[in-house]
Amino acid sequence: MIQKPRGTRDMLPDEMERRREIEARMRARARLYGFREIATPVFEELELFTIRSGEGIINEMYVFEDKGGRSLALRPELTAPVLRTYVEEGRSLNKPIKWCYFADCFRYERPQKGRYRQFWQFGAELIGADSAMGDAEVITLGYDLLRTAGVKFVLRIGHLSFMRTLLADLADGDKKKIRAFLDKREEEAAVTYLRDIGQDQLCDPLIRLCGARTLDDVFAVIGEIPEAARIREMFAILDASGILYEINPAIARGLDYYTGVVFECFAEGLGAENQILGGGAYRLAHLFGGEDTPSAGFAIGFDRVMVALGEESWIPWQPQVMIITTSEGRDYALTVAEQFRMNGIITETDLMDRSFSAQMKAAGKSADYAVIIGKEEVATGTITLKDLKAGTQEKVTADEAIEKLTSA
Amino acid sequence: MIQKPRGTRDMLPDEMERRREIEARMRARARLYGFREIATPVFEELELFTIRSGEGIINEMYVFEDKGGRSLALRPELTAPVLRTYVEEGRSLNKPIKWCYFADCFRYERPQKGRYRQFWQFGAELIGADSAMGDAEVITLGYDLLRTAGVKFVLRIGHLSFMRTLLADLADGDKKKIRAFLDKREEEAAVTYLRDIGQDQLCDPLIRLCGARTLDDVFAVIGEIPEAARIREMFAILDASGILYEINPAIARGLDYYTGVVFECFAEGLGAENQILGGGAYRLAHLFGGEDTPSAGFAIGFDRVMVALGEESWIPWQPQVMIITTSEGRDYALTVAEQFRMNGIITETDLMDRSFSAQMKAAGKSADYAVIIGKEEVATGTITLKDLKAGTQEKVTADEAIEKLTSA
Repeated sequence: MIQKPRGTRDMLPDEMERRREIEARMRARARLYGFREIATPVFEELELFTIRSGEGIINEMYVFEDKGGRSLALRPELTAPVLRTYVEEGRSLNKPIKWCYFADCFRYERPQKGRYRQFWQFGAELIGADSAMGDAEVITLGYDLLRTAGVKFVLRIGHLSFMRTLLADLADGDKKKIRAFLDKREEEAAVTYLRDIGQDQLCDPLIRLCGARTLDDVFAVIGEIPEAARIREMFAILDASGILYEINPAIARGLDYYTGVVFECFAEGLGAENQILGGGAYRLAHLFGGEDTPSAGFAIGFDRVMVALGEESWIPWQPQVMIITTSEGRDYALTVAEQFRMNGIITETDLMDRSFSAQMKAAGKSADYAVIIGKEEVATGTITLKDLKAGTQEKVTADEAIEKLTSA
Repeated sequence: MIQKPRGTRDMLPDEMERRREIEARMRARARLYGFREIATPVFEELELFTIRSGEGIINEMYVFEDKGGRSLALRPELTAPVLRTYVEEGRSLNKPIKWCYFADCFRYERPQKGRYRQFWQFGAELIGADSAMGDAEVITLGYDLLRTAGVKFVLRIGHLSFMRTLLADLADGDKKKIRAFLDKREEEAAVTYLRDIGQDQLCDPLIRLCGARTLDDVFAVIGEIPEAARIREMFAILDASGILYEINPAIARGLDYYTGVVFECFAEGLGAENQILGGGAYRLAHLFGGEDTPSAGFAIGFDRVMVALGEESWIPWQPQVMIITTSEGRDYALTVAEQFRMNGIITETDLMDRSFSAQMKAAGKSADYAVIIGKEEVATGTITLKDLKAGTQEKVTADEAIEKLTSA
């Protein structure tokens, strides 16, 4: 038997229905903020991703060659492709540019539980704005999309200037190490590292900064930095918008290209793999041949959101109708089926050449209502509508049945 | 400048909005027939596609290896993956299985105008039904999806038994050659070929069969074959459903695995690349390790449908609002923005720290209405709603503005 490739999965209809519902809700909500969807190719030139993320990412991507011998990679994320699109096709558009996407990404690694090689992200990028309002809107949108999805989560916000100010005098390599520890939430290791490199005087401030939960606490450690006014303004906007958040100066994000605010959301009940959103302000366009352009964005881990939402059916119920008939009733049944469908009712007919009683049995398994069309119904232009759960039935016109089912 | 890979494209918001609208219409319509969406991985084991389509397809696919050294291919089509999913995960489901998909596929070839390396298909597969009603429903669904999309097209239906009966005495290699000619719509070449292999007596019947446009004409050439009753029934069902079609016995489809009815749709005004749907009855499950299972399905060339629909904006108009304010009005503006969005109105605020007059200018470029919030509006709990096209404005409450915009 041929099987799906290891680390991939098939999604059957119940799951797909839930996913499409959440995808549609997120897209519609982003649209209300003026964020409109774009799509980029599933593969890009390899270089696009090494520029953003470093050569190390090559081992984490599916890489192959096109007919011209160029190295291509299945995209591991969408921010670089979206910014590449901006540089290539969007530079003449009015600023700010507000784009969102819903797309699949790929990671090339040995399969692990709950980590698939193809995964989905819903994300947004704000390009060309450099303001407290812009930063706040990106955070608000991410927050709002998760709320629209119905997931329970906490939002944590930091700013790279906090830690940069504290660690300003360290060598670049040391800063990187500290950031890597913080990124893995290993504060103690960061402190030990500082001690090992003879920077004991930073240990206590680092602990205090990581623990700071108000701006006043943060600035008490690092002083009133030049960015302070803008940072205060951004949080004031979030407060005015009713956004609930925690300040967390330990948020480091993995990559070099972030420049200012950074934020992450964590879902309840997902265990270690609980981060469902990551984002921040960054600059990337100049690396792809464009002008240096301030940007901010986020990506939602769509699959984890779906896990957090659980598998109960929260898709609105729609009545399912099976039409049961014999060869004399066939043409009339086809007309009734079309009429039901035109009115938004899911309507199936027998495709298995089943007997009348076998059709009834099949309807009992899959439908809520049976529409029975025999000789008498054809002759009188009626149908018999049977409620398969209640076991009741009545002879009505197709219009009456539609009225009943669509108002149920 | 890093560019998108050759033969790929980016889709900007206007295009994506049109595509998502058509995708949603097709999905909703398929659902009404009981066809529900599934998703399969973007890549599959190479073997899945060579089993279906022959070794020749390897040169037309993107092939690469996973960490375990297995050959994977980006899917060139979805029928094989859907049937693989059926064999792997769907065999215990009630028959018939009705699945649809909307997915991207890949072709590895030198780029040509209008042929992209990543392309989209909307398709459906009916698995486990072997009946005139089943065949007719698959055709009806394909027809209905294209009508739902709003594209103008013709539907041509054939049946492989027609040509098979006529060519029954030829060697397999000769049958294949003839079918290849017919597939490319090269009837004359097929006739010449028959002559060259000394089968002159088939030339006239082949021409008559290719030209037959009624079942009576078809059976006049090949006789009343065993399949005739079922074929007549299927067309009678299509007639009862009001489906418009042309009978065309020359439709051969490219692949060996088709078994019965075959059908294709062609759009107006697309030139040579005008086929927008292809489908038929086939058997494939047994090749993937399942039982021999009758199936029927089709795939719609979604990108060509979008080209056929043209670029005019036929997305329902939604008013776009830009809120214009100064720092004193900011918090009130945020509240109004949220209130507007909650009522489904696209509402943006300035993210560029623009002056009042620069905000007005920007609104003129992108919005239909400006909501002006100055000191007086804040003090009185009102807003000034300006119709940017008419140039008129009025002072109203947010509720009144919402009422006006949502009833427009």
